[in-house]
Amino acid sequence: MELLNALKEFIPADRVTINENVLEQHSSDESYHTPQTPDVVVFPNSAEEVSKVMQVAAELNIPVVPYGLGTSLEGNVIPYERGITIDFSLMNKILEVRADDFLVKVQPGVTRTQLEKELKKYGLFFTVDPGADATLGGMAATNASGTTSVKYGIMRDQVRDLEVVLADGMVIHTGNMAAKSSSGYHLNSLFVGSEGTLGCMTELTLKVHGIPEEIMAGRASFKTVEDAVNAVIGILQAGVPVARVELVDEQSMKQINSFSDTNYKEVPTLFLEFHGNEAGLNQDVSFTKEILTDFNCEEMAFEADTAARNQLWEARHNAAYAYLHGNPGKKQMVTDVCLPISELAGAVKDARQAVEASGLIGGIVGHVGDGNYHILLMVDVNNPKDIEKANQVNEHIVSYALARGGTCTGEHGVGVGKQKYQEKEHGDALLVMRKIKAALDPENILNPGKVLG
Amino acid sequence: MELLNALKEFIPADRVTINENVLEQHSSDESYHTPQTPDVVVFPNSAEEVSKVMQVAAELNIPVVPYGLGTSLEGNVIPYERGITIDFSLMNKILEVRADDFLVKVQPGVTRTQLEKELKKYGLFFTVDPGADATLGGMAATNASGTTSVKYGIMRDQVRDLEVVLADGMVIHTGNMAAKSSSGYHLNSLFVGSEGTLGCMTELTLKVHGIPEEIMAGRASFKTVEDAVNAVIGILQAGVPVARVELVDEQSMKQINSFSDTNYKEVPTLFLEFHGNEAGLNQDVSFTKEILTDFNCEEMAFEADTAARNQLWEARHNAAYAYLHGNPGKKQMVTDVCLPISELAGAVKDARQAVEASGLIGGIVGHVGDGNYHILLMVDVNNPKDIEKANQVNEHIVSYALARGGTCTGEHGVGVGKQKYQEKEHGDALLVMRKIKAALDPENILNPGKVLG
Repeated sequence: MELLNALKEFIPADRVTINENVLEQHSSDESYHTPQTPDVVVFPNSAEEVSKVMQVAAELNIPVVPYGLGTSLEGNVIPYERGITIDFSLMNKILEVRADDFLVKVQPGVTRTQLEKELKKYGLFFTVDPGADATLGGMAATNASGTTSVKYGIMRDQVRDLEVVLADGMVIHTGNMAAKSSSGYHLNSLFVGSEGTLGCMTELTLKVHGIPEEIMAGRASFKTVEDAVNAVIGILQAGVPVARVELVDEQSMKQINSFSDTNYKEVPTLFLEFHGNEAGLNQDVSFTKEILTDFNCEEMAFEADTAARNQLWEARHNAAYAYLHGNPGKKQMVTDVCLPISELAGAVKDARQAVEASGLIGGIVGHVGDGNYHILLMVDVNNPKDIEKANQVNEHIVSYALARGGTCTGEHGVGVGKQKYQEKEHGDALLVMRKIKAALDPENILNPGKVLG
Repeated sequence: MELLNALKEFIPADRVTINENVLEQHSSDESYHTPQTPDVVVFPNSAEEVSKVMQVAAELNIPVVPYGLGTSLEGNVIPYERGITIDFSLMNKILEVRADDFLVKVQPGVTRTQLEKELKKYGLFFTVDPGADATLGGMAATNASGTTSVKYGIMRDQVRDLEVVLADGMVIHTGNMAAKSSSGYHLNSLFVGSEGTLGCMTELTLKVHGIPEEIMAGRASFKTVEDAVNAVIGILQAGVPVARVELVDEQSMKQINSFSDTNYKEVPTLFLEFHGNEAGLNQDVSFTKEILTDFNCEEMAFEADTAARNQLWEARHNAAYAYLHGNPGKKQMVTDVCLPISELAGAVKDARQAVEASGLIGGIVGHVGDGNYHILLMVDVNNPKDIEKANQVNEHIVSYALARGGTCTGEHGVGVGKQKYQEKEHGDALLVMRKIKAALDPENILNPGKVLG
């Protein structure tokens, strides 16, 4: 009550709520993790308001969780210690498009499709494309990536500057608009991926790219997942600058066909895309076809036509939803390991065996150009045995990845789901992370219990 | 004496020295900054030894400065508070080339040309090429970049993992070998550019690239610097994936011709390079030629031949040395601002006027594709008026850059020379940096007086 009154002093009553439905909406993300409602949800419309919320939270020693659209996959936004959830949906303005500088300035609640629509007017596009239509603030918070990282990099690579509200309400800028800087410590990359545990982002300056002159996309079908993965390694080693290269296994192709009403061949498939000028692309694609053939590709189809390309990528993007749709009542546990590319074929083969041994329904999709793959595992969250089996699969593939120089999460972040692997992955570096957290959030009010636990 | 004895307990006498000549060699870098000798120089050969040195330093509360080859330009390695200089010249092994993963593992004392020679055997290359043949440890410490950043990124973008010895001697790894990760806080980017103030790097895992199928380089001469810069903006906006685009002004072309015995036209010149497949390059180059012509290019010459290309880039790389050679007895103050690309033409024009107003000899060269340019100013370090004039030029152009969203240093780092601009550039973010420094080096023994001051 004290909290509510303190917040209502500077935020109008219609933007501070303890309405049960709203609390409920902010109690979960898209994962299998147990929901928990916050005490109150606020909808600020400026950095100044966020700063005041933080000051109140600091004074009353109350946890704060920043919230975009709740599309996270590791419980990253679930307020397990209750407190204030800051919903950024009203801070959804595209503030400035600096086309000449290939930069855009946005508020954290802007979604990637909203940005895409605006940038199109300038002949520009934003490269990072997670499966969900997440907010850019959320994408920066988890260091999201997607299908184009193999060419354009991940979320962290796109961030030039962040406006951040710190634990005590102070507002800082972590960077600038220059393409590079060696000035001071690099705070951009520290805050990206910190999942709201070091501060709340209230503005992002992001790198954008010109829409490529030509785009060509293709599908390639293989008898085995290993052939498909080895073909990817072959393409990368040949130096072909592929813009996207995605693996979808046999099980996932079936789910996609059923959900998207397509009739792709139901075998391990690579979805590829190339960006560049026409002459260069033709040479890249014909070289790629040779490589695919070398790796026993059974069927391939390349399209320059926009509609055909869009259909293809929509199908790939909907893979995770296809599983949910095809398995009503179940939730999804999505694994997210990433390995050095030379270890990928072995890892994917091992993962397939682990899924089969578990008896769960599940398939493999992945950003294989980065060495990152996901197992989409369907679980009944009310059945402890399902959860246990899924956890076992996860444990197994994380151990496999860590033993080979990989990471437990390529793009979904730690949240609560990947905490148990932090010590094994980072060793004593975890102590350094804890020191940084303690220095910036000594009372541990910023998304407590996440990332470092 | 206590220090010397403590060090000699675990490092053989021939690798711990107070020899005046050796101390002298470690008293300066390639800049105009006042030299200062350390108390002792050690030459460790392992992370274990570095860790023990740090433990001794921590116990006796003595400063430690890591030292590569002393090619820094802002006094970054000068031990102004004396203490121990750790020279990494014996830790100069290339530990592993993982060609399939496009990764290389090196010790910090490996130089970039040493690495280049080794990688060539695998058809690979390391992209970051500062003017000096610096060590990779030094390059990571200052977040160096060079002529190819416009396509391949800066030093920070190449670092996958660092082995770091912390202030208390603890040894950590900051990353892993996966192409991306959302696990824990991103320590790689924090340590890169921290100039030894947060820890000493003892091993680096770096991203490398395949040598491009085809390379084409060119020179383009312009009547004015503004035309040249505007042509660069035109090329970038057209989406041509240029691999290098360097500006050398009229004054600097003269120095280069005299030093390198070349006879390039002595007018503002762009040096360009393109990487890709043959068909794509031909299309890129012909498009670029059109753009250059649109911006009043007076003469252009493109070469696919390796020898001609190498001569061209050697000339560009030697620009700074050409000034030193042509102005015996003088030292160089090199400015290093970086701005959003749309502000570059104005900035360079303003900089030229500032140099002329100062009466100093000086020219402009720059990585203009990144918005980063250098004024090479020749100063007599024994003449306080020269230093004052140079400082005024620097102050002027830094103010200009900061007012337009730029940075005081694009690639040379802060050292001592850029400290006075830190507060203006970072504002309250500087407090966050200070908290991180205090958390990781509470006694301030790691390169004290650098970066944050």
